[in-house]
Amino acid sequence: MADTGGGAAGAEVVEAIETIDLNADLGEGFGRWHLTDDDALLSVVTSANVACGFHAGDPATMRRVCDRAAARGVRIGAQVSYRDLAGFGRRSMDVPPVELAAEVAYQIGALEVFARAAGASVAYVKPHGALYNRAVHDAEQAAAVVEGVVLAGRLPVLGLPGSQLLAAATSAGLPAVTEAFADRAYTAQGTLVPRREPGAVVEEPDAVVERAVRIASGGGVTSADGTPVGIAARSLCVHGDTPGAARLAARVRQALEAAGLRLAAFA
Amino acid sequence: MADTGGGAAGAEVVEAIETIDLNADLGEGFGRWHLTDDDALLSVVTSANVACGFHAGDPATMRRVCDRAAARGVRIGAQVSYRDLAGFGRRSMDVPPVELAAEVAYQIGALEVFARAAGASVAYVKPHGALYNRAVHDAEQAAAVVEGVVLAGRLPVLGLPGSQLLAAATSAGLPAVTEAFADRAYTAQGTLVPRREPGAVVEEPDAVVERAVRIASGGGVTSADGTPVGIAARSLCVHGDTPGAARLAARVRQALEAAGLRLAAFA
Amino acid sequence: MADTGGGAAGAEVVEAIETIDLNADLGEGFGRWHLTDDDALLSVVTSANVACGFHAGDPATMRRVCDRAAARGVRIGAQVSYRDLAGFGRRSMDVPPVELAAEVAYQIGALEVFARAAGASVAYVKPHGALYNRAVHDAEQAAAVVEGVVLAGRLPVLGLPGSQLLAAATSAGLPAVTEAFADRAYTAQGTLVPRREPGAVVEEPDAVVERAVRIASGGGVTSADGTPVGIAARSLCVHGDTPGAARLAARVRQALEAAGLRLAAFA
Amino acid sequence: MADTGGGAAGAEVVEAIETIDLNADLGEGFGRWHLTDDDALLSVVTSANVACGFHAGDPATMRRVCDRAAARGVRIGAQVSYRDLAGFGRRSMDVPPVELAAEVAYQIGALEVFARAAGASVAYVKPHGALYNRAVHDAEQAAAVVEGVVLAGRLPVLGLPGSQLLAAATSAGLPAVTEAFADRAYTAQGTLVPRREPGAVVEEPDAVVERAVRIASGGGVTSADGTPVGIAARSLCVHGDTPGAARLAARVRQALEAAGLRLAAFA
Repeated sequence: MADTGGGAAGAEVVEAIETIDLNADLGEGFGRWHLTDDDALLSVVTSANVACGFHAGDPATMRRVCDRAAARGVRIGAQVSYRDLAGFGRRSMDVPPVELAAEVAYQIGALEVFARAAGASVAYVKPHGALYNRAVHDAEQAAAVVEGVVLAGRLPVLGLPGSQLLAAATSAGLPAVTEAFADRAYTAQGTLVPRREPGAVVEEPDAVVERAVRIASGGGVTSADGTPVGIAARSLCVHGDTPGAARLAARVRQALEAAGLRLAAFA
Repeated sequence: MADTGGGAAGAEVVEAIETIDLNADLGEGFGRWHLTDDDALLSVVTSANVACGFHAGDPATMRRVCDRAAARGVRIGAQVSYRDLAGFGRRSMDVPPVELAAEVAYQIGALEVFARAAGASVAYVKPHGALYNRAVHDAEQAAAVVEGVVLAGRLPVLGLPGSQLLAAATSAGLPAVTEAFADRAYTAQGTLVPRREPGAVVEEPDAVVERAVRIASGGGVTSADGTPVGIAARSLCVHGDTPGAARLAARVRQALEAAGLRLAAFA
Repeated sequence: MADTGGGAAGAEVVEAIETIDLNADLGEGFGRWHLTDDDALLSVVTSANVACGFHAGDPATMRRVCDRAAARGVRIGAQVSYRDLAGFGRRSMDVPPVELAAEVAYQIGALEVFARAAGASVAYVKPHGALYNRAVHDAEQAAAVVEGVVLAGRLPVLGLPGSQLLAAATSAGLPAVTEAFADRAYTAQGTLVPRREPGAVVEEPDAVVERAVRIASGGGVTSADGTPVGIAARSLCVHGDTPGAARLAARVRQALEAAGLRLAAFA
Repeated sequence: MADTGGGAAGAEVVEAIETIDLNADLGEGFGRWHLTDDDALLSVVTSANVACGFHAGDPATMRRVCDRAAARGVRIGAQVSYRDLAGFGRRSMDVPPVELAAEVAYQIGALEVFARAAGASVAYVKPHGALYNRAVHDAEQAAAVVEGVVLAGRLPVLGLPGSQLLAAATSAGLPAVTEAFADRAYTAQGTLVPRREPGAVVEEPDAVVERAVRIASGGGVTSADGTPVGIAARSLCVHGDTPGAARLAARVRQALEAAGLRLAAFA
């Protein structure tokens, strides 16, 4: 979230405009298989987490998504993953740090070619699935991911506030960008309720939209057990891999704009 | 082959020094498996064709090979392949041009990260195995390979003289670099005798060394049926994936130097 | 097509009932990705060509499809493919016969486990995509496929009438089962019009249904250039990987039954 | 360890002959890459753990190893693994039980085809690498492995004494076969010293040979901290993937025979 403008005094009262980034996973098909409605999502989000081939994302799809993202001015990020097509990157893996760092760098480099060919560049990195979750608490793997990012070009890293991933990024001097999830329940500690627990995912569209606006406005969330939780997030993640996802993402965007928020890729 | 110094007149007679590049495939292991003696080859060659993960070459190996090549001043090239780990890229595949171009670009981009991290960059592209052979005569796939190279950055392309690959590279305005094989038999037309035919591979080390010097000196080869064949090659390929290969490559290099040739990456 | 009852004389005139098998590709997802509406198709077809993991079909999907097919009495066949997830098995590959035979056997064996666990068994083999098309005319690969089938258990082979595949199966003493496509245009020679040519696929549902009934009744088809062509097919293939495919397959089945044909797996 | 003959009384004093199985991992190459000296090992071991394609082992290699094992009367076992070619199955993975069970069954079924074609059959199952280690203590994954074995055919399971894997096998009514490692250090509790710790692997050939004889004779081992540890093992694992491994395995076999032990596949 950007500066709120704050105090304001005297005659020239400028209305504070909050700026929020909207990110979604794109290009998560593979060859004959498709998952996300990339075109619909690209008309909604400001940042596209593009799959890089390890959990999804064949090269031709990566190229097409980069071309379209660049044409619409949507920022391109590398959605890096464990090497796990069969498990869609959702199986946590004990990858030795030396290998993990190289795998992360490999994926970013591959995507960079298509981003650059489209006149853009890879602007940030966000781990996918099990790697994302593991890098929340596993300092060794978080450091390996960051080492891979440094190898590939010192890009900003997108992750959960308080995660080992963002701590490692900060230690390495990389911009650490916080994100929040409007459709996920939070604990009183501000962490996500694990997917396996009931109520982990907020299903009701109106509730998702309302939560999105509240988070983006700096109001945080109410945790699963009723506690108000502050969430400092510069980006909001919307999901794109379920039926109706693109429509819900569009509603979130409209509601954010209606609430006076400015949608833009994080600075 | 580089300038021969040419004419020369008057007092300052400069001895013509032929320059030849020596290239070999490196990093052709995958995870637990190893194939090439990378360190030994890196002390011999001037250009390293680094496997990019589609027929061989895991990311950690790519990184290590790039680091060592850069440390020794060996030039790094992308050895791109069909996506075929099980067949080591030796199975010709009818990959649609749109997919092939993207697959080639993907591999180059992935390697570029490690080259750059090592303080170097990917300086050329050479297809591997079945893709190399197919791009000799298949204009459509040759054009797709070149499209991939253009996407990734307008690099020189290494290939057989007279191949569709080099023709496509030239059409696209890319430097087309010719190479020859000291350990392969040639037809009277200057093409390689297919591997399946008897005598396709020159096994005798002394013969390989002698052929290397003759080719590099501009003397061409004698074809399988006894015809002298001119071979204009700016690079000589030595193989690294057989026992004793690194030793033979070293002998080739010594013989070239003893013959007064200068070993250097092609301009 | 099964016996038509034939001659018949005297009092007991039995109406000839044609029997036709209806086959479709099933289980063509992979991990997170889905393609075919397996449940809908299983209520229509009599034979299920189950993907075995090389072009599609993760083990958990294979198990589920086998369980459901067995529960409905649908026969299970192994849909074997080139090893090509990225290309969905649609890229022709020059796989050496020794490797191809082993790859085919591997896939059949893997499927057999799930068929047997479901109380059934793999009852036939049908190549997929590029391997199917290649085995129509490539005698060497056709023989390798048949060698793989023999290794795995002397099963019937499903293919195009006149194909090298069925010729190789017959030579090896395996039952060769002919199939036809209601939604594909035929040449005057009885071969399929290549997909790349206009009109190769019959799109109009009514036309597909009508052609299915005519083929199953022994009436053959009218070729693309208007010639009547005889097609001896014991099985009819319906496609399941396009939107509305399951619905169209159901219409085909109803029309076949309305025409007095009996739907049953081939003998 | 097999029956010792035991008591013995009266005239017919039968010398008690201990019987021990010797197992090793075989076929751990993939396509162009080779690792184990399969032929040398097959002349030494009584049971061959054949890689099934998920961490190593292409179909043509699986076929060849089965043919040779059967020809020599060496028993064939399925060495099942996580799906992880890049990590050689050494990366622990959080595979959901439903998927893991199906993956295990898939691999066993694929191998069964080649064993049967060679006139043998898959006689047991042994997990590889990270799956082996995880199934020592992870009851959920151990149960999934056993579920996969049951799906594929109620085979004996080879594993560490005291492991969750063998407990799950026993619960499922499968024969649980214990094995020991002559070249690994044990803790006082009879578990293996983790590979990452110093001294985990016994490098000295004479020591390996001596330990093998002592374990096979029922004498157990001396733990890393000097405690005598009883090890009830019916099979002894020798490693085949390091230089000199086949030679060391042969020495182990000779020493076992010299000590009066009978080498035979477990009953």
